[in-house]
Amino acid sequence: MIYLDNAATTKVFECAAQAAETAMLTEYFNPNATYKSAVNVNNGIERARSIIANAAGVQSDELIFTSCATESNNWVFNCGIKNHKGNIVISAGEHSSVYEVAMQLKSRGKDVRVAPLTRDGAVDVDALLNLVDTNTALVSVIHVSNETGVVNPIKQITAAIRQKSPKTLIHSDGVQGFIKLNTPISGLDVDYYSASAHKIGAPKGIGLLYMRHGLNIAPYIAGGGQEHGLRSGTQNTPYIAAFAAAVQECSKYDHTQAAVLRDELCDYFSNHGFNIIGKKANSGYILCLCAPKYKAEILQNIVHDKGVIIGKGAACSGSKRGNRVLSAMGLSGDEIERCIRLSFFVNTTRDDAMSAAKTIVDACNI
Amino acid sequence: MIYLDNAATTKVFECAAQAAETAMLTEYFNPNATYKSAVNVNNGIERARSIIANAAGVQSDELIFTSCATESNNWVFNCGIKNHKGNIVISAGEHSSVYEVAMQLKSRGKDVRVAPLTRDGAVDVDALLNLVDTNTALVSVIHVSNETGVVNPIKQITAAIRQKSPKTLIHSDGVQGFIKLNTPISGLDVDYYSASAHKIGAPKGIGLLYMRHGLNIAPYIAGGGQEHGLRSGTQNTPYIAAFAAAVQECSKYDHTQAAVLRDELCDYFSNHGFNIIGKKANSGYILCLCAPKYKAEILQNIVHDKGVIIGKGAACSGSKRGNRVLSAMGLSGDEIERCIRLSFFVNTTRDDAMSAAKTIVDACNI
Repeated sequence: MIYLDNAATTKVFECAAQAAETAMLTEYFNPNATYKSAVNVNNGIERARSIIANAAGVQSDELIFTSCATESNNWVFNCGIKNHKGNIVISAGEHSSVYEVAMQLKSRGKDVRVAPLTRDGAVDVDALLNLVDTNTALVSVIHVSNETGVVNPIKQITAAIRQKSPKTLIHSDGVQGFIKLNTPISGLDVDYYSASAHKIGAPKGIGLLYMRHGLNIAPYIAGGGQEHGLRSGTQNTPYIAAFAAAVQECSKYDHTQAAVLRDELCDYFSNHGFNIIGKKANSGYILCLCAPKYKAEILQNIVHDKGVIIGKGAACSGSKRGNRVLSAMGLSGDEIERCIRLSFFVNTTRDDAMSAAKTIVDACNI
Repeated sequence: MIYLDNAATTKVFECAAQAAETAMLTEYFNPNATYKSAVNVNNGIERARSIIANAAGVQSDELIFTSCATESNNWVFNCGIKNHKGNIVISAGEHSSVYEVAMQLKSRGKDVRVAPLTRDGAVDVDALLNLVDTNTALVSVIHVSNETGVVNPIKQITAAIRQKSPKTLIHSDGVQGFIKLNTPISGLDVDYYSASAHKIGAPKGIGLLYMRHGLNIAPYIAGGGQEHGLRSGTQNTPYIAAFAAAVQECSKYDHTQAAVLRDELCDYFSNHGFNIIGKKANSGYILCLCAPKYKAEILQNIVHDKGVIIGKGAACSGSKRGNRVLSAMGLSGDEIERCIRLSFFVNTTRDDAMSAAKTIVDACNI
C-alpha cells in the first residue's frame, strides 16, 4: 500500500515511539509525588517542555501539555477570554474543535462573528478586520487549513488586529503548522496557539497550548493542580517524552521540500482534469483535489483496491455529509462530493507521490 | 529500591505496554478517516471498549474514553447535570478533581453541600442523606479514598438516594476501585463512574467515563465528534489498547489478597506506635499511617536512602501543605504532618511489604 502521510516509516516516528517506550518502561513513577524517583520523572517532563519551547521560540512556562489540540482549543474559548462580554471573531475555515465550541458559545448568547473565506481557501483578511472592533474579546484564525493546507497570514492579521483593538486576544489553531512551517510561535505575535503531537510523528493523545506570559487563563480541567495549576490530571509522561523527541527530529527536516513536491503534483493533476482546491500559500503537506468523475467515496475505494490510501476530506470531517470549510470556499455540493484529500509527511518520496497520483488519475479515466 | 506499588514488574504492565507499542507501531492510521485501514483501527477501539465494558458489567456504548479520570470528573460536573438549578452534594473525601470543580461551581453561585467524613474515613452516610433533597441534581461520592483506601458503601448510598430523590443523578469517582474491587460498575447503580487506566497498570493518559444509557450529557471537549459525538479529539489508540489489555490481565488476579496483606501490615505498624488512618472497609491497596516521630517528609527521605519508596499523602495532594481529606477525618495539623502513605499493586509480595515496614519502623526508632 502507498500511504503518502506515513510518518511511521520515518526516524521522527522511530525516535518518538522509542522515547514513549523508554518512559513507559522506566519512568512510571507519578511525577507529582514527592519521593526522589518521582521528582526525576517530573524533571523529565520539564526537560521535554524546554526542548519543545526552544523549537517553538517561546519560554517553557508558556507551554502547557494537554491531551490534544482539540482540548487546547476548547480551553481557550471557554476559559481564555478575560473580557467575557466582548464578541468573538473566527474564520469560516476553522477546524471543528474551534468552530463547534464557538457555536456552543453562540447558542448561549455570545456574539460570535464568522469571517468568510476567499475562493482560494484563506480567510478574507479585510472582511475579518471589519468584524473586529474594540469590544472583540477573541479572534481565532487557523494557521494552516486541515482541509486544504492553505496558510493564513497570521502575522499580518495579528499586526492589523493589534492596531485596531489592542486588547483583543488572538488565538491560532496551529495543528497543521507547528514545526512543519518554518515559523516559530514567537514570530506570529499570537496570545494562544494550539498544537497536537501526532501531526509531527508522535502518538495520538498529546497536545499543547501556548499561552503568552501574563495571560490569566483559568484551568478547564481542574483538580490536583498539575501543569503549574493550569491542567490537572496525572501527566502522560511517555507521550510528553515522545512529543519532545518528535519535535527534535522533525525540526531537522527541510520543510520547504513538501511544497516543491506538492507543486509538481498540482501540475500533474491539473493536466488531468482535477481542480486544485486552495491555491494560495500552502504548507505543502496537504493537497485537496476535486476529481473530474467519481464521488470521493467511490474513488477512495477504487484506488484503495489498487494500493493507494487517500482521504475524503480531513479525518475529522470525512465521515460527515458535506464539508463546512469547502462550502465556505464556495464549492458546490456536487464539487464537494468529488473532493479527495492527500496528505504528506517529511518522508514522502517523489516516486510514491507520482505513483499514487498516476493511480488516482488512471482510476478516473477508466 | 523497594517500591510496593510497582505495577511495572507485573504481567499486567507488560501486556499493557506491549499492546500500546503494537498499536503505536502498526495502528497509526487516523481511526476517524474513511479508508479501510483507518476503519480497522476504529474497529480496534471498539474491541477494546467491548473488553472493558464486559469486565465492568456494562454496555460498550455506556463507556467513553477520556484522557484521564480528572477529565471525566470535570465533565460530569460541568455537563452532566440535567436539572441545572438543583443543588450538588459531595463528600468531604473527594479527590481534588471532584472537589475543586465543585468549588468552582460554588463560587459561581451553585448550592454545593459537603457531607462530612467519619473519623474512620468513610462518608457519614446519614449526614449525606440529610443533605440530599428532591432538588438535588447530583451526588458524588468517591468509591475508594485515594488517601486512605477506605471504601464507601456506594450501593447502599445509591439505594437510599434513589428512595429519597429518584431524579437525582449519582456519580462515583472510581479511580482506586475500578477492577481492583470485585464490584462491577453495574452493581453500584450509579449514573456516572470515572476511572483511570494507570491505576491498573496501563500508562498514564487514558481514562473513561461510564454513563448510564439514556443520560443526556453534552460533550465537554467538542469538535470533530469522536467517541460517538461525546468526546472530540483524535483517539489515543495505543493507550486504549493498553487499557483493554490491563483490564484483561488485572481481572485475573485475586483482589481480596491485598486486604489480607494490608491487615498484617496494620497489626505490625500498630504494634510499633503507628496509627492506622482509615480503619473501615478498605480496598487493601492503600495504607495511610500516622508515624510516631518524624514528619512525613523527613521519614520519606530517611527510608528512601535505605531503599524504600513511600508517599507523603496521595500524589495529587502530597506536594501541598496540609491535607484536606485527612483534615475532614478530624486529624490535627500535627498528625497530618506525620502521615505517610503506602500503596500496593497486585504483585506486592509479603516479603517486600514486611521488609519495607521494618525499614519504616526502624527509621522511627533510631
